Amino acid sequence: MKLDEFGLIDKFARMTKPGTNVIVGIGDDAAVLKSKTKGFYDLFTCDAIVEDVHFKLADGARKIGYKAIAVNVSDIAAMGGIPSAAVVAAGISKNISTKFCEELYSGILFACRKFGVEIVGGDTVRSKGIFISIAMTGVVEKGNITFRKGAAPGDTVMVTGRLGHSLKGKHLTFIPRIKEARWLACKFPVHSMMDISDGLAGDLKRMCDASKCGTVIFAEKVPLERTLKKLRKNVSLKHAFTDGEDFELLFTVSPRVAAKLEKDFNRKFKVKVSKVGVIIKEKKLFLESEGKKTPLKFRGYSHFG
Amino acid sequence: MKLDEFGLIDKFARMTKPGTNVIVGIGDDAAVLKSKTKGFYDLFTCDAIVEDVHFKLADGARKIGYKAIAVNVSDIAAMGGIPSAAVVAAGISKNISTKFCEELYSGILFACRKFGVEIVGGDTVRSKGIFISIAMTGVVEKGNITFRKGAAPGDTVMVTGRLGHSLKGKHLTFIPRIKEARWLACKFPVHSMMDISDGLAGDLKRMCDASKCGTVIFAEKVPLERTLKKLRKNVSLKHAFTDGEDFELLFTVSPRVAAKLEKDFNRKFKVKVSKVGVIIKEKKLFLESEGKKTPLKFRGYSHFG
Repeated sequence: MKLDEFGLIDKFARMTKPGTNVIVGIGDDAAVLKSKTKGFYDLFTCDAIVEDVHFKLADGARKIGYKAIAVNVSDIAAMGGIPSAAVVAAGISKNISTKFCEELYSGILFACRKFGVEIVGGDTVRSKGIFISIAMTGVVEKGNITFRKGAAPGDTVMVTGRLGHSLKGKHLTFIPRIKEARWLACKFPVHSMMDISDGLAGDLKRMCDASKCGTVIFAEKVPLERTLKKLRKNVSLKHAFTDGEDFELLFTVSPRVAAKLEKDFNRKFKVKVSKVGVIIKEKKLFLESEGKKTPLKFRGYSHFG
Repeated sequence: MKLDEFGLIDKFARMTKPGTNVIVGIGDDAAVLKSKTKGFYDLFTCDAIVEDVHFKLADGARKIGYKAIAVNVSDIAAMGGIPSAAVVAAGISKNISTKFCEELYSGILFACRKFGVEIVGGDTVRSKGIFISIAMTGVVEKGNITFRKGAAPGDTVMVTGRLGHSLKGKHLTFIPRIKEARWLACKFPVHSMMDISDGLAGDLKRMCDASKCGTVIFAEKVPLERTLKKLRKNVSLKHAFTDGEDFELLFTVSPRVAAKLEKDFNRKFKVKVSKVGVIIKEKKLFLESEGKKTPLKFRGYSHFG
């Protein structure tokens, strides 16, 4: 969920008083609700993907369907949870063939099987451009839930995988870090976690705002997508900080935990984890490059920029 | 949920095997899931409304927001349930003002307060036309749940309110029959129930298909919107049978129950209930007018017609 990317939506969040069943409403990757199962919370999220914003028709229907599920699974993963059921609302434009729709649903169902999600309902409507809006439920043990808030001064800032250039391809086929997120949430005292959907810069700001702290990121430690490495350093960093849709995990742990976690993680998973920065008390974002600390000038990806 | 309005979606439903937690998946007004609360089922539904299909910009943002919630509440009501929480995905086009968005959310929140729904999260994205896709959860006692299937030969077919011409105004301000549906589901042995979202003809067919039966509808008993009464009989009937978005309840009970139910209902509620037909074994839809029975030739409203 990315409600805060639109100034208005902050207002909407303030207009919405969380009720007695809501642990966290608007403002995290998924809503956290009291569960009827002792020791658990329920999770509830939704993410819509839209033609010419999150995908092009030419990307192929199967990949588009896959992505619609994967972005929601990524939200559940960011809370340390396990996805359960989903409903799909699809807006289909006039020019769309039956074959395209079949492949779209086939991509949706493929992703559902892969990540253990059950499609239980939906709505199909005519619209100008294609959109696929998915709402997903999940569960998480109370002891394993990870919020955006919770980062503490001194924490090590970590990310999975490589960042940037995702919109040049990976954003359609990325694997949401559900396995890694569950492992982290179950094995380690993770202080805060979220998925990187709108660029590291924007999502760091969200995590710091929620945790009432700041951060220093070490430029040389930011793991760049391979295709970025031939670009000038400043250009490649800009991509890593501002490109949308990496869907990697951003999280913080105490420095002592970070060392062991990094070793164990990199032994267990194909994808690597990197220590990219440190949480500070001052509520500002800094970039440290070649020993020089300057205010982070990159801004996250925004649909409304 | 109206998945079956698109031939493809039947295929999608067949591709989707219901899992062990799913009582009813695709094909009713809402999905019915096993609940952790003894004696209850969980409900899960989604409905999207789209600019120039379900509303015009000129309708006003507040009414559009209200409608987005109300159509989902109507789905929960049709199952005999009570709505609980919702997530909102909104596609907002470039030309939309801040004021419009504020009013849209104000309409959403107004409807939520009115029907006891809690907004717990959302997603706002840029899109060509406006859409609002809402997913809603609810609960219902196992003893009170009402499915589409369950209509039995001999049953009396009943509807609430008046039908037709909804798209000329009422579709934006209609009150989902949640109060009436709960009262019916709790007080009477209702055999089958659904909301009329795509016109009486189309929704009767869905109910009969799900129940493996047919029906005879008495033309003179169909309650017409007042504005239809000055039209020629055949024209007004066509509207009552085929106009979309009435959001009244369609349900069947045994004839003995129907008599008492009609009396009690019309005493209790401002809106009236009408006996409009009878369920038959033969899997066909008939219209009886002035004593003459002919195959029902009207078809429901379809986005893909």
